[in-house]
Amino acid sequence: MISPMSIHGGIDLGGTKIQAAIVDDDHDVLGSARRATPTSGGPADVAAEMEAALRDAAASAGVEIAALAGVGVGSPGTIEGSSVRSARNLPGWEGSFPLGETLQAALGCEVRVGNDVQVATAAEFALGAGRPYRSLLGVFWGTGVGGGLIIDGQVWRGRGGAGEIGHVVVKLDGARCTCGRIGCMEAYAGRAAMEARARKLHEEKGRKTDLFKLMREHRRTRLTSGIWARALERDDELAAELIDRAVGALGTGIASVVNVLDIECVIIGGGLGVRLGEPYARRIARAMQPHLFIDSRPPQLHLAALGDLGGAIGAALLVAGESVPAAPAQPAVGSATDPPR
Amino acid sequence: MISPMSIHGGIDLGGTKIQAAIVDDDHDVLGSARRATPTSGGPADVAAEMEAALRDAAASAGVEIAALAGVGVGSPGTIEGSSVRSARNLPGWEGSFPLGETLQAALGCEVRVGNDVQVATAAEFALGAGRPYRSLLGVFWGTGVGGGLIIDGQVWRGRGGAGEIGHVVVKLDGARCTCGRIGCMEAYAGRAAMEARARKLHEEKGRKTDLFKLMREHRRTRLTSGIWARALERDDELAAELIDRAVGALGTGIASVVNVLDIECVIIGGGLGVRLGEPYARRIARAMQPHLFIDSRPPQLHLAALGDLGGAIGAALLVAGESVPAAPAQPAVGSATDPPR
Repeated sequence: MISPMSIHGGIDLGGTKIQAAIVDDDHDVLGSARRATPTSGGPADVAAEMEAALRDAAASAGVEIAALAGVGVGSPGTIEGSSVRSARNLPGWEGSFPLGETLQAALGCEVRVGNDVQVATAAEFALGAGRPYRSLLGVFWGTGVGGGLIIDGQVWRGRGGAGEIGHVVVKLDGARCTCGRIGCMEAYAGRAAMEARARKLHEEKGRKTDLFKLMREHRRTRLTSGIWARALERDDELAAELIDRAVGALGTGIASVVNVLDIECVIIGGGLGVRLGEPYARRIARAMQPHLFIDSRPPQLHLAALGDLGGAIGAALLVAGESVPAAPAQPAVGSATDPPR
Repeated sequence: MISPMSIHGGIDLGGTKIQAAIVDDDHDVLGSARRATPTSGGPADVAAEMEAALRDAAASAGVEIAALAGVGVGSPGTIEGSSVRSARNLPGWEGSFPLGETLQAALGCEVRVGNDVQVATAAEFALGAGRPYRSLLGVFWGTGVGGGLIIDGQVWRGRGGAGEIGHVVVKLDGARCTCGRIGCMEAYAGRAAMEARARKLHEEKGRKTDLFKLMREHRRTRLTSGIWARALERDDELAAELIDRAVGALGTGIASVVNVLDIECVIIGGGLGVRLGEPYARRIARAMQPHLFIDSRPPQLHLAALGDLGGAIGAALLVAGESVPAAPAQPAVGSATDPPR
């Protein structure tokens, strides 16, 4: 018996944008839509915008919401069942909000909620760069640095909070992190920390840089991944210095995790990771090398393959069951033992 | 049908001693023996001493070697099948040696070889302090700092080299480790690194300490765990300073691993860990606390419960099948949120 094709929705809730996608059983994207994440109001306003983004995506796919077998959501913050607590980058979201229930009532279909980074890691494992492997670490390099783990073919959540690679300590008595702790990888590699340091060195220490000029020219209010990329293309000295520092911290922290877990593969994603691309992924691999205990066989290192829609496609996997296509091997971006190009 | 009781041997091969035990199906120790690890010769001499230790243990248990259903071995170095490569603390053991085959020929029963730290972690999980948990990190604080992982109720070996928590980087551009790398936890917390630093500060910088006097009085050639413990009891300032530094590095590195894996429990074992005992285990928990990303629910922290024979009992588990007694909860030594005593 052949069961009829079912379709699912996926919503990736980010600090700056909400990305929605409609996917079929083969994980092909039938339609997608993007909206800006509200910067004021509260969780209910965010949920309303998520609903609207999903309806946009359904319209672009030419399907009714009623036709969806379910909707998956990848969210920042602490996931408690289908509620979300302490999504600190989102407006007024310090406490717990019943995000799943709210969307379920609005959309009239089953909604499941997962951690955004775990969901994106699961998507890379099932459908993207992680398909040839049974164990991997996803590193999402953006405003912060998030991590997701696949151990023995399964997402590993620990007691619910696994994957916080951004808060692996890379320097005892080091820099203060945006989380308030000392010496975290994110204090060196997170885009928010990098922007704060760039601003301080520029405004207080008089260091020259085009970073903030580029930001204004492109009508941004923050140093986005695109701004960093443009500054690097212009050989901006301060930008290069801060990116080098970030790459060093990433290589060190990722190598520490590899020494403990000996996973097969590391996948680099996130806004900065994807925007800076392969040359910087190779730099991260080279920065790992001096800290790998078994340096003769570093893990394979790949860029995330699903791009911008990875989070939404991964969210749809939360409701799409276990049917995952077979996994051909893919060439790695490079390992730390590759000669520099 | 009740199957007859079978008995097994276990051998824990350490850098200073070989510990052998005979255990029954209930994991009760029927007899044990200890011999010094040869400091010269080569792998074959070590294997001969291991055979002798097991024969001593069998004699003390009043059983024939022929009665053993199998023998398990926990060994340092890289385990490749039943061969051992690069056991660097052992004499002439840079290459690969067929340890399992050699012992099997000598003893006439099945021999299986596992990594010493993974075997000790599995023993704590199955029979010791880790029984109430499904995920845990074993930290063996001795000459070096070894680690073992239980994830979802199974030993996690990665590609064979998992658990190297001693080589988690705690300080970018930090101290040089005995492994040659920079900033590893073991460079601060390993007994070998601590002894080298104590010697340097004493001999080159003129720092006062009783550590080396105690070493000579007790006819030791190295600063053993007992020497460190005695110096601490005498309020030796340099010993206290170096132990504090080690505890800080341990807390930082363990917290990093907890942030990534969110395991339920940390078990502190190893020569120094067991010798210094609960007060220092509590100090490690407190040193973890400022670096835990989810600091409201630190993992439980226990001392290893199986003591000196844990490695040998764990080695016997390699051949004893899966029959493991049920697991009642035990009180933790303390968590980082306990008030200081």
